[in-house]
Amino acid sequence: MSAILERVKPYLRINVILFAGLLAFLTPQVFANTPEGAAPHAAVTFLEIALILVFAKVFSIVERWKQPAVLGELLVGVILGNLALVGIHWFDAYKVDPNLKFLAELGVAILLFRTGLESNVSEMRRVGFRAFLIALAGVVITFSLGAFVIGPWLLPSLGAAAHYFLGAALTATSVGISARVFTDLGKIKTPEAKLVVGAAVIDDVIGLVVLAVVTGLVTTGAISFGVVSLTLGKAIIFLVGAIVLGQIFAPRLSKIFSRIHAGAGTKFTLVISFCLLFGSLAEQFGLAPIIGAFAAGLVLDPIHFTSFKNARIAEELKTELEKEESGLKHKILRIVHAHEERHIDDLVEPLSHFLVPIFFVLTGMNVDVSSLFNPKVLLLAGALTAIAFIGKYCSSFFAGPGINKMVIGFGMIPRGEVQLIFAAIGKELGVVSPEVFSAIVIVVIASTIFSPILLGYALREPRAA
Amino acid sequence: MSAILERVKPYLRINVILFAGLLAFLTPQVFANTPEGAAPHAAVTFLEIALILVFAKVFSIVERWKQPAVLGELLVGVILGNLALVGIHWFDAYKVDPNLKFLAELGVAILLFRTGLESNVSEMRRVGFRAFLIALAGVVITFSLGAFVIGPWLLPSLGAAAHYFLGAALTATSVGISARVFTDLGKIKTPEAKLVVGAAVIDDVIGLVVLAVVTGLVTTGAISFGVVSLTLGKAIIFLVGAIVLGQIFAPRLSKIFSRIHAGAGTKFTLVISFCLLFGSLAEQFGLAPIIGAFAAGLVLDPIHFTSFKNARIAEELKTELEKEESGLKHKILRIVHAHEERHIDDLVEPLSHFLVPIFFVLTGMNVDVSSLFNPKVLLLAGALTAIAFIGKYCSSFFAGPGINKMVIGFGMIPRGEVQLIFAAIGKELGVVSPEVFSAIVIVVIASTIFSPILLGYALREPRAA
Repeated sequence: MSAILERVKPYLRINVILFAGLLAFLTPQVFANTPEGAAPHAAVTFLEIALILVFAKVFSIVERWKQPAVLGELLVGVILGNLALVGIHWFDAYKVDPNLKFLAELGVAILLFRTGLESNVSEMRRVGFRAFLIALAGVVITFSLGAFVIGPWLLPSLGAAAHYFLGAALTATSVGISARVFTDLGKIKTPEAKLVVGAAVIDDVIGLVVLAVVTGLVTTGAISFGVVSLTLGKAIIFLVGAIVLGQIFAPRLSKIFSRIHAGAGTKFTLVISFCLLFGSLAEQFGLAPIIGAFAAGLVLDPIHFTSFKNARIAEELKTELEKEESGLKHKILRIVHAHEERHIDDLVEPLSHFLVPIFFVLTGMNVDVSSLFNPKVLLLAGALTAIAFIGKYCSSFFAGPGINKMVIGFGMIPRGEVQLIFAAIGKELGVVSPEVFSAIVIVVIASTIFSPILLGYALREPRAA
Repeated sequence: MSAILERVKPYLRINVILFAGLLAFLTPQVFANTPEGAAPHAAVTFLEIALILVFAKVFSIVERWKQPAVLGELLVGVILGNLALVGIHWFDAYKVDPNLKFLAELGVAILLFRTGLESNVSEMRRVGFRAFLIALAGVVITFSLGAFVIGPWLLPSLGAAAHYFLGAALTATSVGISARVFTDLGKIKTPEAKLVVGAAVIDDVIGLVVLAVVTGLVTTGAISFGVVSLTLGKAIIFLVGAIVLGQIFAPRLSKIFSRIHAGAGTKFTLVISFCLLFGSLAEQFGLAPIIGAFAAGLVLDPIHFTSFKNARIAEELKTELEKEESGLKHKILRIVHAHEERHIDDLVEPLSHFLVPIFFVLTGMNVDVSSLFNPKVLLLAGALTAIAFIGKYCSSFFAGPGINKMVIGFGMIPRGEVQLIFAAIGKELGVVSPEVFSAIVIVVIASTIFSPILLGYALREPRAA
């Protein structure tokens, strides 16, 4: 079986590449008919989506070298978005297609919703105080270094709000990437892994609150105690309110969800509407919609539901087993029961396969490679990467006794979704210049490439006492 | 279990309604900040989507009365879209939101892709000649009555192209609705059901070719033999080419698909990109993207793939059964094998739960209820409904001996997706006026309400010899 798989794999890769080639060949033909700047025909966006998804999948080859798929998506975006430098302008229209932009915004909301689903309130309570200390220390150190050292030093022409934005962008560890590295290396059950994932979740929340505060500062223009406390207050009311109300109503919803047998469609609708409603509510509170989506995921976490497809198998097997009585029967029933339940996330997953790569590829496309030849951008990217590493490494000193601090330090390094979202929102607000944007994305790429290597090294070392 | 379910159901319904109420309450707040006409914030569209999905689900209550869910979606659209008549303008912005419009276009492409997946080339060959005759007769009769009788009689001020569009809109039976009615009534295995579904598939294809030809006529402005044959030729080359190439490559793809164990994401990406690529290709051939999506579904139909989740259960059960030898073992293995394979459609289904209701609700919103007070529209809708019934009923005379012709006649009546797509495209092209649009949607609603009733009656009658 495995031998067949090995023989088929390269063939599949070739087919995917041929498919991508055909799509790329079609692109200039389609764009010949599209007026510059206007919202294109739906069919044009269809081709763009197909191309983005297929290329992202081709570049998911980075997973073979133990790299997360998000790296491949960013790289493909960087390459396609910069082909204009060698005279190929096929992909220029992607950056201004409003349909694509909306799908990316929807995708990132779904991604944060899923991140929320991965975390839950009680798990955060368990790893508790230590994780909170690590998270807070990491946020404070990286933010301070970014906002008060690197910002004023390398970007003196920009205002304080821009410096705060820069610092804030560096704060959040990527839950997805660090959790995935621990899983890949078979270390997800270690106390270090639990602390890192716990702290990463907490600093996601802190990071999102910081984003709300900083965005409030930028949009109102002034830096005043009133603005900060109002934004912070609204953010806390929203998040705490969502979590408290969620804790009260989630078990009820859970009961209902687990009992409805008819219509996976109904559950999907409720789940996705809940996510979008929270996103929309967050904007009412002056927060980014993604914060709402994250809160929705956090609230819905305890809800499981019966898997319809698996329930059908289970039903048939049970009917058959009714007639028998043996040890085998109990073993089989155990397997069946274990598979009867499914997580909400299973409903949302296909949607995220569709939408999330669009966000990351578009983000990569907005990286201006020509700015890499700009020594200022390179210096900025280098300095930010150094801060991103140092700030999180220092936070590991709060991990307490009996913990391998090197694992914590390296485990907290990955930056990902939240940092890219900061960059995208900052660009939208006009506070993040194209050079700073490129530098921030370079930090994500650098941290994503190096942290699995460093973490792998640390996990092979003997544990510190 | 069933008792619990019955007690929970009304409670769920209340929750859904409360949820919808909350969403509706939020709507005016959000829209207060949106400038008229401009593409709204992503969060505004999020709320619109949530509202559409939840209301569509509330109105899926029509399924209790044996009505298809699409009817509920149309009705909720009609209601929300016409609240402006009683002074509530919350939903006016939905009709002009470009994000929502794009999602609807994506949704209808996915719907036609799934319709293509439901049909397949060999199945169409089996029901063969008779189904083709029924389909062709139905198309010719309804088109002729619409284009050459009703059009010139009731809409004399419009040109021949508009009359052709009107006739063409009536041609296609809804595969989805008729198949669903037969399934609901437990008659899907009868020869009548096979003929109706086969003929409905064929007249979908004929209808889509007619759409291509008529659209070509309208956009080029002139009705010439050259334009007709060019459009027809391109449509045939595209469809035949897609099907022939598909038949050659699908088994290969099938082999590869069934052997890859890693990454449901990869399969999903390939499948959805294939659909979108074909949609985009179709536009290159001067056809509607939906025709391409349908062809993609037709081509991919023979491809099945291993279900990862079920495969995991199967693996565990097989390991357990290795050690045993009994009759029970074989029975269990049979059930396991039957569930190991999954259809491509399972991958696409969640995406369609998300996107398809948006298309139908938006379509319903575009129905102008005030036009119902216009006797001309009512007369037109009545006349078109009569034609839609008569044309398809006559086609049943070609069903051959031993077949209950009443079942065929009533089974061919449902109109749905394709007719609504005609109306939407016609409106876009400017050839379908708001009054004609409303009349066409009324025909869909009338045929959708009455055909299940008529078909239920015909199926209870003794079969004709």
